[in-house]
Amino acid sequence: MDLIVQKFGGSSVANAERIKRVAKRVVAAKRKGHRLVVVVSALADTTDDLLALAESITDHPSVREMDMLLATGEQVSVALLAMAIHNLGEKAISFTGPQVGIITDRTHTKARIMDINTARIEEALKAGNIVIVAGFQGKTATEEITTLGRGGSDLTAVALAKALRAKYCEIFTDVNGIYTADPRIVPEAKKLGEISYDEILELASLGAQVMQSRSIEVGKKFSVPIYVRSSLNHSEGTLITKETQKMEDVVVSGVALNLNEAKITIFRVPDRPGIAAKIFKVIADHGINVDMIIQNKTQTNTTDISFTVAKSELKRALEGVRAAARFVGGGQVSSDQNIAKVSIVGVGMKSHTGVASKMFGALARKKINIDMISTSEIKVSCVVPGNKGKEAVRALHREFGLSKK
Amino acid sequence: MDLIVQKFGGSSVANAERIKRVAKRVVAAKRKGHRLVVVVSALADTTDDLLALAESITDHPSVREMDMLLATGEQVSVALLAMAIHNLGEKAISFTGPQVGIITDRTHTKARIMDINTARIEEALKAGNIVIVAGFQGKTATEEITTLGRGGSDLTAVALAKALRAKYCEIFTDVNGIYTADPRIVPEAKKLGEISYDEILELASLGAQVMQSRSIEVGKKFSVPIYVRSSLNHSEGTLITKETQKMEDVVVSGVALNLNEAKITIFRVPDRPGIAAKIFKVIADHGINVDMIIQNKTQTNTTDISFTVAKSELKRALEGVRAAARFVGGGQVSSDQNIAKVSIVGVGMKSHTGVASKMFGALARKKINIDMISTSEIKVSCVVPGNKGKEAVRALHREFGLSKK
Repeated sequence: MDLIVQKFGGSSVANAERIKRVAKRVVAAKRKGHRLVVVVSALADTTDDLLALAESITDHPSVREMDMLLATGEQVSVALLAMAIHNLGEKAISFTGPQVGIITDRTHTKARIMDINTARIEEALKAGNIVIVAGFQGKTATEEITTLGRGGSDLTAVALAKALRAKYCEIFTDVNGIYTADPRIVPEAKKLGEISYDEILELASLGAQVMQSRSIEVGKKFSVPIYVRSSLNHSEGTLITKETQKMEDVVVSGVALNLNEAKITIFRVPDRPGIAAKIFKVIADHGINVDMIIQNKTQTNTTDISFTVAKSELKRALEGVRAAARFVGGGQVSSDQNIAKVSIVGVGMKSHTGVASKMFGALARKKINIDMISTSEIKVSCVVPGNKGKEAVRALHREFGLSKK
Repeated sequence: MDLIVQKFGGSSVANAERIKRVAKRVVAAKRKGHRLVVVVSALADTTDDLLALAESITDHPSVREMDMLLATGEQVSVALLAMAIHNLGEKAISFTGPQVGIITDRTHTKARIMDINTARIEEALKAGNIVIVAGFQGKTATEEITTLGRGGSDLTAVALAKALRAKYCEIFTDVNGIYTADPRIVPEAKKLGEISYDEILELASLGAQVMQSRSIEVGKKFSVPIYVRSSLNHSEGTLITKETQKMEDVVVSGVALNLNEAKITIFRVPDRPGIAAKIFKVIADHGINVDMIIQNKTQTNTTDISFTVAKSELKRALEGVRAAARFVGGGQVSSDQNIAKVSIVGVGMKSHTGVASKMFGALARKKINIDMISTSEIKVSCVVPGNKGKEAVRALHREFGLSKK
């Protein structure tokens, strides 16, 4: 009998009715002859409610106590799901992360899984149970309760699939799968049957958030097939897996849009070796993540340096950047929040040429000015004016024939 | 430095404001030089909300999963209280019952504490922490989460006080202490400075519910002084302790009223040896707790047998009683819900005579008819008509001079 790990997010278990629906789905899979481990998130809103409670007590909660508090959310879900499954006549047993031996490091609120002791789960499976595990949580070697941070339940599911040598890991969510573009922007976007780990990693980091990158990285590292599908219907989802020949035949798999970045420029930076290193060291010391960087020498002896950061970090970033500019004797610092990053992603780019120039051409025909360009082995990103982002996505989606899939 | 165990109930930690108030009180005790272990219940309403969630899923929740669900309530409280104490600048650390080594048997939803491993608490105390422990919960030897049933947090507190050899256990509640009678019935009732374990056990079982009997029994068994006081003010509470000579000089310590019992009578039971045993065996087999029993032979060859049961169990009890009556060839079965049980309690009764007749005289002067009588070494209970219960309590309170204390 195949072992499958299923994961249901907070919106899938938002209330009693939805929990019962999840129970039906789990029981149906069990009755098809699968052995099942089910990972569940906290009921939608629970985590926010708990955070609000903590905020009403203190502005600076201890991270250890935050984990103590937040870990209760998933414990509620697993107990309720077990009850709902019992009600359908199947055996089920719920466990917390700590109970089930998910051992993490001591980084409270964003702990990393170090080890999983699968003995207890295997014993419960052997006894014929559907095993339900609280996502997002674990314990340290000294029995401290920890949580795994954003997307933690996905991580629990993928890590359990690896540890238990599951056939695959199903991530149930509120979308039908992964699309060639956001269907709200490109109505003719098509659902992908499968996608490679690397492509989804690029898409996730580029703003098409289906799963947190950490979980996919773990899936990639241990070759765990991840099946993303809807908890609301039975449509086929998208399988995230290793690259196949079929994938490589496709030049572009998807187009992503990210409207959450801002651009910062430092003008007239002295053009000396090591200057960029100094600037970005100061910025990093301020705890700011930088995304795209371009440097363009246009004057004699000085150069302008531009880069993008998350909009939410812009204010803090500017403080760091001004410090950096002073430090290296640079000129004025400017910022621009009205930018959009559009990206095309596809493993096929490795073996196809002219992809970038085709992209630039498509944007040019729409008279969309390109402000910054960055590329990797399997993606090309362009920063364009913010109000042109959606038009750019639609143009590229058409250019690369993605609607025909 | 003295070690004190403090316990705060659900109404004391009902919201952020109250949690902050509890934190202040705990910190004040710490700054007086005490070492502190603080046991906390779930925020008021939390347990009811969780029960409602479970009910919306199934009519017959598994007890194991109920414990999984309910144990989250106290975990939330301890984390929030720790945060509130941090905010006041003191060190504090919270633990769940399982984390702190409260080992129970496997009777889910009403587990018994088997052992407490105090190493982790002692280590945390040594590091200068106020140690906060989730009440009401523990784990089995195989790491299953259990809960201790009604009054479980009191039990956690008293058991910890014993295990840690605390100087005493403070139970903070929403009343100022234990009174000679319910002040809502007898306005001149006085708060008792101290009371013996046995007296409070009789009072609790007689309807004056301040603490669950189980916790007091544990306190008595291990001679843990229990100090009942208000979390809302700083008035002196009531100390529950071993009998002292001073206590024995007082004939009656308190008067209790119980309006939650009903009387059942089986008429014309054949008057043969062993009949009563047969009847109450059948009733016990139906899982019904019987309180007072009287048998009065008034006819030749037959006798009437009366007893009281909890009103909430009356319907179920009658089924059992009718079966029992048929089984022994008895006659008609009747029931009466309009009864009140009034009781006087005092360790002084052991060494004083005429207490019962004084009680009967006081009731007679008020023309209150006595329907049933039962006595123990330190109490006398009378069943009177339901509408006379409060008047009876007031008459007895006056008769035994309790207002003068």
